[in-house]
Amino acid sequence: MEERLAELASGHGSRVGEDAEATLQAGGKRLRPLLVLLCAGPQAGDRATAAATAVELIHMATLVHDDVLDSAPVRRGEPTVLARSGRDRATAVGDFLLSRAFAELAAVGDQEAIQTLAAASTSLARGELAQRQGAYDLDLGEDDYFHRCSLKTARLFEASCRVGRQSTSEVGVDELAEFGSRIGLAFQLLDDVLDVVGPPERTGKAIGTDLLDGTVTLPLIWARQVDQEIAADGLEGLDEASAAVVCEQIVATRATDRVRARAGEEIDAAKVTLGSAGLDSEDVRLFSLIADGVVERYS
Amino acid sequence: MEERLAELASGHGSRVGEDAEATLQAGGKRLRPLLVLLCAGPQAGDRATAAATAVELIHMATLVHDDVLDSAPVRRGEPTVLARSGRDRATAVGDFLLSRAFAELAAVGDQEAIQTLAAASTSLARGELAQRQGAYDLDLGEDDYFHRCSLKTARLFEASCRVGRQSTSEVGVDELAEFGSRIGLAFQLLDDVLDVVGPPERTGKAIGTDLLDGTVTLPLIWARQVDQEIAADGLEGLDEASAAVVCEQIVATRATDRVRARAGEEIDAAKVTLGSAGLDSEDVRLFSLIADGVVERYS
Repeated sequence: MEERLAELASGHGSRVGEDAEATLQAGGKRLRPLLVLLCAGPQAGDRATAAATAVELIHMATLVHDDVLDSAPVRRGEPTVLARSGRDRATAVGDFLLSRAFAELAAVGDQEAIQTLAAASTSLARGELAQRQGAYDLDLGEDDYFHRCSLKTARLFEASCRVGRQSTSEVGVDELAEFGSRIGLAFQLLDDVLDVVGPPERTGKAIGTDLLDGTVTLPLIWARQVDQEIAADGLEGLDEASAAVVCEQIVATRATDRVRARAGEEIDAAKVTLGSAGLDSEDVRLFSLIADGVVERYS
Repeated sequence: MEERLAELASGHGSRVGEDAEATLQAGGKRLRPLLVLLCAGPQAGDRATAAATAVELIHMATLVHDDVLDSAPVRRGEPTVLARSGRDRATAVGDFLLSRAFAELAAVGDQEAIQTLAAASTSLARGELAQRQGAYDLDLGEDDYFHRCSLKTARLFEASCRVGRQSTSEVGVDELAEFGSRIGLAFQLLDDVLDVVGPPERTGKAIGTDLLDGTVTLPLIWARQVDQEIAADGLEGLDEASAAVVCEQIVATRATDRVRARAGEEIDAAKVTLGSAGLDSEDVRLFSLIADGVVERYS
């Protein structure tokens, strides 16, 4: 999968290659392709590799476009495509990566995977739209938040497990998809906690960036249920210093602890699902490690 | 196809729907889907309709992202998604439309079309990247220009004809694909002429916007071969008034007439191709009308 990603980045002339390669090599955890390949199991072949590659390409496309939307200078401690090459090229690089994802799936003729991943990719865009639409809206409720997390994050995790499993087996497809969906939600919950608690050295970005973007996340929603005074004047006027104060106020309500606990429940439920997925004990152990890894990354 | 586009725009909640619907209904000529359906012929069925829908979605996605890149307030005389809803939503709406295109193709299981259109969509993004990369570069040559036109425009026209024809017949696929590629190139050439000669009332945008973007097009390249003094100080410092002067200087060299003639040659060659596509005389007449329509739109 890594070899294929590198080929794709380098196979389209130096102009595309530079940004795409830097984006792909900036790395990240490759958590989604890992899920694809693990769900495919030891029989994983070309279909699974193509699906893993496509999933990562879709994810990278989203990151590149998110950075454009957020005007983010840094991701994972490295300059973003936006910072390196400007808004124009970053938008086009994202489109390139997204188109390549479907080209990759088309090349191996994996009809089911195209259908599943096109739907997941549509959901990602809808989640992004929902987030922009709901920006600065302090009346945003828990349900809106969870729906957005599902669109933005959980569905691609779910789709990763589904297409991986389908590439080699009909057993446990729905169960592994549910596993993926739940750890995806946990992942997003913990990511949103991290934006509040930092520290910036670990996250590679400043504390409170969600607040500064106007993105209303669960820690803020739950904190404001305890203390309506938090961010009572709205998020529009915040600067870095006042956002940091709001972050401290959120932590003081223990909302971040409660969100962490909620993420933990998702992880537990995800593991329970493994019991009915028809896996052997070694596989259950592997998937549990992944599930725990999501939490550990953030603890 | 129009019904399906309207369904897609309205089927994802009001947040997505608003922008997507406005984008789709803003209309345009639907030239690419027309090519798909005409190439499919009277036997056109679900595959052809899905392909026509997907082609238009890919095209619309590109337009929405182009408007973001160009900071364009107006397209076809209507406010752009960018102008109406901001950069953030416009980027996400483009991603949504692009993902929907592949979901649409996946739903009817048209493997060949997915492969062809994913490649065309990748080319579009590469063409956009090439254009941004080559911005303000007055050393850009004819070959660079034609390569960019191929990526940016001709390949989606070509793909439209290919997938349309393949949906119903194996006869004349390559010939119709060549027909599409040639009229696509003519289309781009004439579009680039129009940016120089206007009038703004017809184009729905100001004259010389390419120059102001730093986009070096064939009229400028050929004009500067005649008169090196044109835009000799570079495109960086141009404002609307000085861009209009450069446009007049380009016209004075007759470069725009020569580009029009070049487009006419492509149209003629496209029509010649029809002769070996195994079409009946009524079909030849229809395709010739389309080819002439590309020219007439700009004459």
